[in-house]
Amino acid sequence: MTFDPATLKYDAAGLIPAIAQDAASGEVLMMAWMNADAVARTLDTGRVTYWSRSRSAFWIKGETSGHVQDLIEMRVDCDRDCLLVLVRQTGPACHTNRRSCFYTAVRDAQETEIMAPMAAGE
Amino acid sequence: MTFDPATLKYDAAGLIPAIAQDAASGEVLMMAWMNADAVARTLDTGRVTYWSRSRSAFWIKGETSGHVQDLIEMRVDCDRDCLLVLVRQTGPACHTNRRSCFYTAVRDAQETEIMAPMAAGE
Repeated sequence: MTFDPATLKYDAAGLIPAIAQDAASGEVLMMAWMNADAVARTLDTGRVTYWSRSRSAFWIKGETSGHVQDLIEMRVDCDRDCLLVLVRQTGPACHTNRRSCFYTAVRDAQETEIMAPMAAGE
Repeated sequence: MTFDPATLKYDAAGLIPAIAQDAASGEVLMMAWMNADAVARTLDTGRVTYWSRSRSAFWIKGETSGHVQDLIEMRVDCDRDCLLVLVRQTGPACHTNRRSCFYTAVRDAQETEIMAPMAAGE
C-alpha cells in the first residue's frame, strides 16, 4: 500500500509525535512533532523535518547547527498516531549539546545526569 | 535533586508522552501517555502504568494480558515534556501481539509490514 501522510492520525493541532532513534546504536535521541507536510518533506528530502510548535514553522533538524538527522527509515505504529524515525545523527541531537535529550535519569528517586555534553567536532 | 512528577510539563489534558524501550535490545516498543499520578505509580510500583485516554483510567500495562513492563529506568528529556522508560517487556508490547507497535515501515513509498505477531508463549 502506498504510504499517504494524510492517513495518519494527528492531534487537534494537526501534529503527530515522532521519536528519533539512532539507527546504528539504537539510542533514543529525542521526540518532536510533525504535521502532514513535515512527514512528506522528511520522506521526500531524507532530512528529518519537524514542525516547531514554538515558532510555528518547519524545523529542518540541524539546518542551522549542522546537527542533521538523515532519515534511514520511517515507521508507523499500530494506531497510526505515532512515528518512529531511524536516523543517522550528526553530532548531538539535543540543543544542550548532548547526544540525546534523555540525559536525566531517575535513580533512587533522585534526578541524575547520565550524559555529558559532547566536545566540539565529536 | 529529588524527582517530583509535578515538575514535568504536561499538555492541556494533563498528559505527557512516554516512550517504552526494551532495556536489553534497545528496541522501541510503544508510545503511550502518563499523567502525574501514573508517573508516580510507575516509579512506586516498578510496573509501567499509563493513562488510557480512551478509557479515562489508569492502564497498568499487561494487567489483563500478562504482557507487563517492569521498569528498569525512567528518563526525562531536556524540556521535561517527554519520558523514556527503559523496560523489561514480557511477551509482545503491542495489542496486535507483535513485539513492538512500530511494525510498519515506509520503504520505497510503500507501507511494509516488517514484524510478525509472536507465537503464544514466545
